[in-house]
Amino acid sequence: MFDLVVRNGVVVTASDTFECDIGVENGTISAMARNLPPGEQEYDARGNFVLPGGIDSHVHLDQDSPETGAVSANNFFSGTVSAACGGTTTVIPFARQVKGSSLRQAVTDYHARAENKAVIDYAFHVIVTDPTPSVLGQELPALAAEGYTSVKFYMTYDALKLADMEILEVLEFCRREGAMPMVHAENSDCIKWLSAKMLNRGLVHPRYKGVVHNPIVEREAATRAISFAELADVPLLIVHVATAEAAEQIRSARSRGLKIIGETCPQYLVLTEHDIDKEGMEGAKYICSPPPQSDENRRKLWQHLETGTFQVFSSDHAPFRMDSPTGKFVQGTSIPFSRITNGLPGIELRMPLLFSEGVQTGRISINEFVALTSTNAAKTYGLYPKKGTICIGADADLAIWNPNHEVRASIDILHDEMDYTPYEGTQIKGWPTTVFSRGKVVCQDLEFRGNRGHGEFLRCNRPNVPRQDDYAVTLANRFLAHQS
Amino acid sequence: MFDLVVRNGVVVTASDTFECDIGVENGTISAMARNLPPGEQEYDARGNFVLPGGIDSHVHLDQDSPETGAVSANNFFSGTVSAACGGTTTVIPFARQVKGSSLRQAVTDYHARAENKAVIDYAFHVIVTDPTPSVLGQELPALAAEGYTSVKFYMTYDALKLADMEILEVLEFCRREGAMPMVHAENSDCIKWLSAKMLNRGLVHPRYKGVVHNPIVEREAATRAISFAELADVPLLIVHVATAEAAEQIRSARSRGLKIIGETCPQYLVLTEHDIDKEGMEGAKYICSPPPQSDENRRKLWQHLETGTFQVFSSDHAPFRMDSPTGKFVQGTSIPFSRITNGLPGIELRMPLLFSEGVQTGRISINEFVALTSTNAAKTYGLYPKKGTICIGADADLAIWNPNHEVRASIDILHDEMDYTPYEGTQIKGWPTTVFSRGKVVCQDLEFRGNRGHGEFLRCNRPNVPRQDDYAVTLANRFLAHQS
Amino acid sequence: MFDLVVRNGVVVTASDTFECDIGVENGTISAMARNLPPGEQEYDARGNFVLPGGIDSHVHLDQDSPETGAVSANNFFSGTVSAACGGTTTVIPFARQVKGSSLRQAVTDYHARAENKAVIDYAFHVIVTDPTPSVLGQELPALAAEGYTSVKFYMTYDALKLADMEILEVLEFCRREGAMPMVHAENSDCIKWLSAKMLNRGLVHPRYKGVVHNPIVEREAATRAISFAELADVPLLIVHVATAEAAEQIRSARSRGLKIIGETCPQYLVLTEHDIDKEGMEGAKYICSPPPQSDENRRKLWQHLETGTFQVFSSDHAPFRMDSPTGKFVQGTSIPFSRITNGLPGIELRMPLLFSEGVQTGRISINEFVALTSTNAAKTYGLYPKKGTICIGADADLAIWNPNHEVRASIDILHDEMDYTPYEGTQIKGWPTTVFSRGKVVCQDLEFRGNRGHGEFLRCNRPNVPRQDDYAVTLANRFLAHQS
Amino acid sequence: MFDLVVRNGVVVTASDTFECDIGVENGTISAMARNLPPGEQEYDARGNFVLPGGIDSHVHLDQDSPETGAVSANNFFSGTVSAACGGTTTVIPFARQVKGSSLRQAVTDYHARAENKAVIDYAFHVIVTDPTPSVLGQELPALAAEGYTSVKFYMTYDALKLADMEILEVLEFCRREGAMPMVHAENSDCIKWLSAKMLNRGLVHPRYKGVVHNPIVEREAATRAISFAELADVPLLIVHVATAEAAEQIRSARSRGLKIIGETCPQYLVLTEHDIDKEGMEGAKYICSPPPQSDENRRKLWQHLETGTFQVFSSDHAPFRMDSPTGKFVQGTSIPFSRITNGLPGIELRMPLLFSEGVQTGRISINEFVALTSTNAAKTYGLYPKKGTICIGADADLAIWNPNHEVRASIDILHDEMDYTPYEGTQIKGWPTTVFSRGKVVCQDLEFRGNRGHGEFLRCNRPNVPRQDDYAVTLANRFLAHQS
Repeated sequence: MFDLVVRNGVVVTASDTFECDIGVENGTISAMARNLPPGEQEYDARGNFVLPGGIDSHVHLDQDSPETGAVSANNFFSGTVSAACGGTTTVIPFARQVKGSSLRQAVTDYHARAENKAVIDYAFHVIVTDPTPSVLGQELPALAAEGYTSVKFYMTYDALKLADMEILEVLEFCRREGAMPMVHAENSDCIKWLSAKMLNRGLVHPRYKGVVHNPIVEREAATRAISFAELADVPLLIVHVATAEAAEQIRSARSRGLKIIGETCPQYLVLTEHDIDKEGMEGAKYICSPPPQSDENRRKLWQHLETGTFQVFSSDHAPFRMDSPTGKFVQGTSIPFSRITNGLPGIELRMPLLFSEGVQTGRISINEFVALTSTNAAKTYGLYPKKGTICIGADADLAIWNPNHEVRASIDILHDEMDYTPYEGTQIKGWPTTVFSRGKVVCQDLEFRGNRGHGEFLRCNRPNVPRQDDYAVTLANRFLAHQS
Repeated sequence: MFDLVVRNGVVVTASDTFECDIGVENGTISAMARNLPPGEQEYDARGNFVLPGGIDSHVHLDQDSPETGAVSANNFFSGTVSAACGGTTTVIPFARQVKGSSLRQAVTDYHARAENKAVIDYAFHVIVTDPTPSVLGQELPALAAEGYTSVKFYMTYDALKLADMEILEVLEFCRREGAMPMVHAENSDCIKWLSAKMLNRGLVHPRYKGVVHNPIVEREAATRAISFAELADVPLLIVHVATAEAAEQIRSARSRGLKIIGETCPQYLVLTEHDIDKEGMEGAKYICSPPPQSDENRRKLWQHLETGTFQVFSSDHAPFRMDSPTGKFVQGTSIPFSRITNGLPGIELRMPLLFSEGVQTGRISINEFVALTSTNAAKTYGLYPKKGTICIGADADLAIWNPNHEVRASIDILHDEMDYTPYEGTQIKGWPTTVFSRGKVVCQDLEFRGNRGHGEFLRCNRPNVPRQDDYAVTLANRFLAHQS
Repeated sequence: MFDLVVRNGVVVTASDTFECDIGVENGTISAMARNLPPGEQEYDARGNFVLPGGIDSHVHLDQDSPETGAVSANNFFSGTVSAACGGTTTVIPFARQVKGSSLRQAVTDYHARAENKAVIDYAFHVIVTDPTPSVLGQELPALAAEGYTSVKFYMTYDALKLADMEILEVLEFCRREGAMPMVHAENSDCIKWLSAKMLNRGLVHPRYKGVVHNPIVEREAATRAISFAELADVPLLIVHVATAEAAEQIRSARSRGLKIIGETCPQYLVLTEHDIDKEGMEGAKYICSPPPQSDENRRKLWQHLETGTFQVFSSDHAPFRMDSPTGKFVQGTSIPFSRITNGLPGIELRMPLLFSEGVQTGRISINEFVALTSTNAAKTYGLYPKKGTICIGADADLAIWNPNHEVRASIDILHDEMDYTPYEGTQIKGWPTTVFSRGKVVCQDLEFRGNRGHGEFLRCNRPNVPRQDDYAVTLANRFLAHQS
Repeated sequence: MFDLVVRNGVVVTASDTFECDIGVENGTISAMARNLPPGEQEYDARGNFVLPGGIDSHVHLDQDSPETGAVSANNFFSGTVSAACGGTTTVIPFARQVKGSSLRQAVTDYHARAENKAVIDYAFHVIVTDPTPSVLGQELPALAAEGYTSVKFYMTYDALKLADMEILEVLEFCRREGAMPMVHAENSDCIKWLSAKMLNRGLVHPRYKGVVHNPIVEREAATRAISFAELADVPLLIVHVATAEAAEQIRSARSRGLKIIGETCPQYLVLTEHDIDKEGMEGAKYICSPPPQSDENRRKLWQHLETGTFQVFSSDHAPFRMDSPTGKFVQGTSIPFSRITNGLPGIELRMPLLFSEGVQTGRISINEFVALTSTNAAKTYGLYPKKGTICIGADADLAIWNPNHEVRASIDILHDEMDYTPYEGTQIKGWPTTVFSRGKVVCQDLEFRGNRGHGEFLRCNRPNVPRQDDYAVTLANRFLAHQS
């Protein structure tokens, strides 16, 4: 007898759409058919889509700001509750190395933060800020073997950024071990130079954030990172792409056959510089790095989403309160844009916003929605097919999606312990009215119904093929090919 | 009780790969699970992939050459037997209007050719050669309502080609009715001009076929057709793309957000001008329009396949024998390239060649293989989800694919009644050892085991959204948009 | 002793800018130096630029409209007076073949129109509308030998257009004889189809002209013509490019090494759809084919001009009066846009507009101005170095340009016998205060001072290298190159 | 009376070609005419072209290698003698700052090296390696006022390279003062990483130089530098472009309207990796940074030259002998590629090679040859019109070019005190048989006939418009433009 039968829904995967019942045993999907025998628990999904639960592969939980020291508004409980209530059943936050410290230590530390708190399953990306020989030669290989198979690095922020040589070394590690590199691509010195120009001239309003993080700044770093990946012969994921100029570079690289994966976020498809331009400190609500840009830029990013430039759609959830002394204004309430804490909340509205603005408008199909919010992340980070799809043997992580349910976005209905949402007032059509994690209800009708600590740590497989050749010889052959 | 259970295979769809049993009732897939109860018939697929049967959406069956009058080597029996033995369970041949005659008549005529012969299911594309007001205004809409929802037209061949104005009118029909237009894109006058140049100079060897149908000729027509589709605001499928230059135009159009669908064929990924260059009339075996081009072109076409320029992979099967007085040389045995009958057989080796050269080499994933050979065609032509995938409710059209089975391509093992295969001697790894059509075995271990007449006619749904607006006003708003 | 010394001016060529005196003998420049000995006539150009007189290589003089039958407002006298007063000292109008008649006859006929009327020198392009074997094989070669070395053809207008095959044959002639082909690139059937849509729907206001001649229509034809030129291996000039989309194709072709020459006109850099959108029939003043497009299009065309996409800047002067029964409204005063006579006047303001909007704004250098308005046309059409520059041996065709002279454009000051100018009210800075043709003053201080019949017919050299190879073999080698 | 009359030659400028005599007084061109009165000195140029003397704007004279410490084979005497004998009449070597020292000191020092030695005129670029506040704020502005208006910086070599922030500051200086920035664009860390890979694996032969300096390495740095120039709103010249990939970036930037100037050199158009691949240490003769690449790359660079991607053609003359203990092998005779001194001689053959391979083959016109070898450099670096063309008032720097004179390149005929030439044995057609510097013969029939110390220092004008706006505000307006 099934533990649960989800009945009469329209199942959607990244490629298929069909009506059937889903039978769940021990948290996994064990049968798909019409008219399955009764389960211990029954759920009638008639009139709804049954989607794979979302995977939010870019979230900052219980993580302070590396720049201002602001404290995250979410720990692993509140953050994952908020995720679950928005249809997400897996999160991949970051374990961030402190320069001068061990990466292993960071992983241990972040595990402690997650344990007994998370209400849905989670994996970790590691953030490398100090790729010493022991990190590259011992810690990272060991961690990869234990299921930490994605490595993020930064090209900006003094506390985090790697030099070009360090990036090449991290990429080389990824190639050898089949790990997935991820990059925050903005040019650090450009930001500093522009920022100093603005501040020296007294241009301190939040709107100047967008001048400092202008499209050239992201394009430069993205292009450089792509070149390094081409040289190191490794896939590369570029996180939170905010500008059409960087997206264009990704498209071009993909056309040449490079495996560059683009990630974008709701803030770049829904918000613009007009939001940041609001009077006084209101614009601080929309301050993130990189920040939203022009209307034209937003229009082009949608076109990139529709035409396949982006494969992953995440929230980059980084919640800092406006009203807290440890939040947006930890460094003061009357500060220039450069000292306002970066980061927007978005973990809960990520999927509803894309469904409403993307699927309902006909920009993307519902299958593309599934791919962007779940399947592709699972494949990219080695969680597939346990996560990311609806098939026999997969975890029964399901979002029952009512396409006609309308919600007006408001901080009042969200679960992220924030005091604002950047999407306040946005009308959303389509909502995950019930969400299952491994067959257990975690959210129903906008209310959390799960259990603290239900979430389990996920060991990721190596998403790419490890390449353990004699790379010097490979390189020589590659670039001397025309001679032979 | 299931009529059939396919057990222990690894099911593959366009996005997913997972192990499960498949239960079949009345020819459709009714259950997917592990350890299904026994079926009347049992098939153990352990160690094999279970793929959706292929859809070959570009085949010429029982269709004479419009240029030379040569007679097809295949009727609907032999042609579909050959298809089935290569893993294909649906074909979409063409019902071709004769200029001056009714299109309806052509459809009736081709139905008669198919009935009681086809061993697998079939739909029809219609070929419009004479888009009179009654064809556009009455016959085509009626046919679309009856399940003939794809319309092919030619930009070359005197007997077939449409003028620009006629193309625009056909596209406008497709937009209004949600039909799918398909185009053979080569510039007729360029071909004539070049051909006359070659013949006048005595350059008659088959190799000069490639000079006449050079990349500029296809690029020009493809670009023009794309412009017409952009103007008529309609999707467009470009058939048998042979050159990287045309592919580049498709890629560029897709990046701009146009829904241009590219189709390519095995002959362009496997053969090259070196084959046509063979001594004497040997090159005639590889004569088709457009013909294979240079090595470099082939390399680039693979890259386009890998990076998403092509969505449909078909055979363009057009079998004319070398040894028959009604075949390749119907106009004589000592004739210039321009009078050799165009067309290559390929219906049976289409899928094995792509699996061997594409999947086994790592160029494409097995999910991409499924998409290219089956799912995308089903979606493009309105056959999905009855055909094109493995899901609850779909027809049980299954190809049991043994990835390790090796076959040396040879005319001796093929079922297409031809006297040669252009792939003679090619080593192929991976083969559809058993093929089911609606739950019935049609082929096993390279032998046909099905029944004449088992194939049914498929009524296609409208693949695109019908657009019944006031198009003049839509156009005016579109091009005057900048004013408002 | 010099007949004339132009003293103290700043001489400008396509590459150089320097101060010197110019000595003229027998109508040609015989000396350049500082402090030349006195001439019979002296002209002090201090504070002015001395430019090569302009070459307007696209003008319709004494030529009726092929569509509406409207009669040109200018004969060769009034037209060349107007040209001269705007700094132009050479015009190249068209001798247009009537379908069914001899091209030679057209040339004879147009000579008669020009003789004893033109006040500046002139050559002729021939327009081929009926490329019969005798035209291609006898008339065109004979005419090329006599100095008619540029051949224009149309891709639209029923009375003028060539089929693809005819275009290929004309291009092949050009290649063999070193003649320069010129093309009006718009897709005829697209125009007809769109026009019928608008008219059937009652969308008849002039503004719909721009919908019918939208950017796709020009892009398609330009791309096709470029493909034909690539196939025929011949340079090609695309006249009056109106859209950034066509310009982009030209740029791309030039990058690939093709010798495609782009021409644009003042109406595309100064006017937009806003002008055509004016109330009532006011928009008719701006009706030409192709018509001006959006603001964004204009901005991009300027960028193309600045970055080298265009080499020739002409007027496409085609003057039809608003108030005349044989002018704009020859077919009635209450007619749809499609029956309003095409064509704008512009021969007199061409150079002042570009100087004012291009040089004074810093968009182009004054050397680029000379290249665009004079030198490049001379080289393109085989008139160089007799025309198109200031050097020893060149004709003393000089425009004394006062960069500070300001003029408000108005029909009152123009000499073209029109009743309107599309540039009415435009403030222009920089003006050719004195103009010399072969050392004789033809215009001074906005007044004509020359002589009817002063202008001489110019025999053009072959601008391109004649290619008299065995072209079938050349083609075969080109497209089979990869084999060897 | 003229000091010199050059008679009957065909004068060539960047745009014009015409026959005339040239009269010279006090070293400058004072008259151009046919049949000038006799001069004190007469030169009959009949049958020859008279070209502006070349400007070699990238030469290293009396400058040691910053990496190996090798000593230049040329001082300002031998280097300029060699230049003059190849048709060059102006050189612009570098005054290189030593990190930690004053830039002014470097300029003073290099002046001392040049004085009383140079046989032709010279200017200096400064190389900034240490842009301290006093260098940026005081030394550079003062030097710009004194005629040092071009600033080179490096993105590689530990002893020379600037950080991104330093580059931005140097560019900002250039913008403010109208100076011309020049960049050696290769990614330092990529080179180090690749070099370490090769050396660790024992891949030490000169051929691996090309693997380390592969096209990605130059493309990355060029793209980054272009982004910085776009941000700083300043023109930028990219020196010695060796790869089609970097050239493609320059072309793309120019199309977008950026003023990026591309320079290439004979070694990239004539040599390839096949040369470096020669046995033993023979390949060391061709070691430079970046080194020549594949045949295909060379072919594409020619296409870029033909289609306008490059504006400046220089030698990057850096002569280090094979046989000297202070030359190529100063660090040992049995050393890996990375320790061989970089640099090739080329000052003397630069122009003859381009004339022979470019003009004689029809790839470029003789006017383009003049632009590439002389005029454009004069304009780019503020030496025009004193240098770089033939016009009234210009210096009488003339190269009498016999297009039919054939020379077999050989170290025996060169004047650069080297023991090899990389072009040994190359057949060259076209040679500067006589060369004048300010009206004085410096070279005749391959022999030096000038005088040590004849050369004068040239103060360069500011080549670009100084921009002394409030740049923070300009930037803000630029990137917030969409808001308003």
